[in-house]
Amino acid sequence: MSNRAESVLVGLVGEGVMPSLTPPMHEREADVQGLRLLYRPIDLLELKLPATAVGDLLTAAARTGFNGLNITHPCKQLVLGHLDEISDDAARLGAVNTVLIQDGRFIGHNTDFSGFASALRDGLPNAKLDRVVQLGAGGAGSAVAYALLKAGVATLDLVDVDPARAAERADELSGLFPAATVTPRSTDELPQLMPLADGLVHCTPIGMAAHPGLPLDIELVESRHWVADIVYRPIETQLVREARAKGCKVLDGGRMAVGQAADAFQLFTGKEADRDRMRAHFLELIAVEDAATALSDATLAKAAH
Amino acid sequence: MSNRAESVLVGLVGEGVMPSLTPPMHEREADVQGLRLLYRPIDLLELKLPATAVGDLLTAAARTGFNGLNITHPCKQLVLGHLDEISDDAARLGAVNTVLIQDGRFIGHNTDFSGFASALRDGLPNAKLDRVVQLGAGGAGSAVAYALLKAGVATLDLVDVDPARAAERADELSGLFPAATVTPRSTDELPQLMPLADGLVHCTPIGMAAHPGLPLDIELVESRHWVADIVYRPIETQLVREARAKGCKVLDGGRMAVGQAADAFQLFTGKEADRDRMRAHFLELIAVEDAATALSDATLAKAAH
Repeated sequence: MSNRAESVLVGLVGEGVMPSLTPPMHEREADVQGLRLLYRPIDLLELKLPATAVGDLLTAAARTGFNGLNITHPCKQLVLGHLDEISDDAARLGAVNTVLIQDGRFIGHNTDFSGFASALRDGLPNAKLDRVVQLGAGGAGSAVAYALLKAGVATLDLVDVDPARAAERADELSGLFPAATVTPRSTDELPQLMPLADGLVHCTPIGMAAHPGLPLDIELVESRHWVADIVYRPIETQLVREARAKGCKVLDGGRMAVGQAADAFQLFTGKEADRDRMRAHFLELIAVEDAATALSDATLAKAAH
Repeated sequence: MSNRAESVLVGLVGEGVMPSLTPPMHEREADVQGLRLLYRPIDLLELKLPATAVGDLLTAAARTGFNGLNITHPCKQLVLGHLDEISDDAARLGAVNTVLIQDGRFIGHNTDFSGFASALRDGLPNAKLDRVVQLGAGGAGSAVAYALLKAGVATLDLVDVDPARAAERADELSGLFPAATVTPRSTDELPQLMPLADGLVHCTPIGMAAHPGLPLDIELVESRHWVADIVYRPIETQLVREARAKGCKVLDGGRMAVGQAADAFQLFTGKEADRDRMRAHFLELIAVEDAATALSDATLAKAAH
């Protein structure tokens, strides 16, 4: 008699998640598939709750009939202590962004890595993966590096502004992928590294609206390199634009954003998401926002005169 | 950017609510109106929580993005201590079956009484309301009596198997409606009371599948009486069937069930529900269940041979 089987209730726990595009992406895909799905942002900042409240929110969601939750910053590690079960990949990665709630049990998964993996597969088919330079070894960077090594990258040069973080991350990944060579690097080494690399992956905030610019000297990028960015607002970062202008094959950050959502959709609903349709909708959502922002900027500029 | 405004998440807190027909009634009506609405049963028995957990469940629902909750047995009084605001009628009645969650605040309403009031208005238009006999003075009976007195009943004879409960309830209602005469009565007095009454309202469990039978000697019912039952499973109780056979105007329990749901739908969504459409769906849901039960009974009977 329960309606749970016939409908899907999911949410996103994290700080500042109210503007996330993941809820409308899931809801729209479900609509097309004729599925009743509702996706609620659950914002720690709005609720004035600390990140450590993630366990309480899991319990609240289970009691109120949620089928699952996506988990984002700053709870992807904190949530580990509240799980009953965890997928092998999420356990190895030490981070969970998707929790299924089944019979009151919490089962952790990670679709950040799998989302990047499928993005890479779909967006850059046949890309040469022998040697890759990755910029940024933070949370998202960890998932991306894990996906790269799982996809067969033999030599990964891990660059971070924080040498200790690069070293720690390289050490962890070497342990998980003993056949691969993962080396912590500094930005100073890029002129030596890029000529050896097949591709470049960018996992820092540079290029976002709030952090405009390029994450490396664009002269180091050659037309034979493929270039993947995980920044997706704007979808066309300066890096993506200039690399494309050079003739590089590029992968914009929207691919990973859609990939993680599509994989989570499948876990939540048991149904495969149409990635092309989800991406089209994602680009549409971004375009609407950009138009709104431009309009608001124009209004402000007008008001200033 | 929030999706809350564009979609509605509601639930029903109480014991044994998993088989409730209220969730599908709301969801179907929302579907027809093009509204994304998801309605979750939140069952205290299933969660192994005491009735006093209703406050915690309110908090859980607010944190996870619920727009409101229906509240049923045994929490309609317990919930009062957790509200920030309450409608006048719910406060006078001392019972809340609908809580709106707005900006983290809990606002209590009662659509049991208003649902019966609109059921009476729609289902028995122009019914004479001077004097009414009511059987049953429990929780549902209180809401019904309140609705009857608000609708203009001048003399209400309140019959209950528990004389103390009838007395207490009559006393409360007399306080709220000083112009009316509300008298506690025993079943022994029915032969004297029915000849004086315009109509009969039945608010005990008798007539439900688990409690078959008639709540009074049917000889006391005359064709000039109108008869309202609040039992709705089955929709055609023995009382409704025999009263109709006598030529009485009747109001089945489905009207109140739909009325409370329609009024709650309007509070939750801000949109008016189509009561006829909701009733048609409600009858359809009951028919499907009855067919399933009959099938299961037949299977059991077959297995017994």
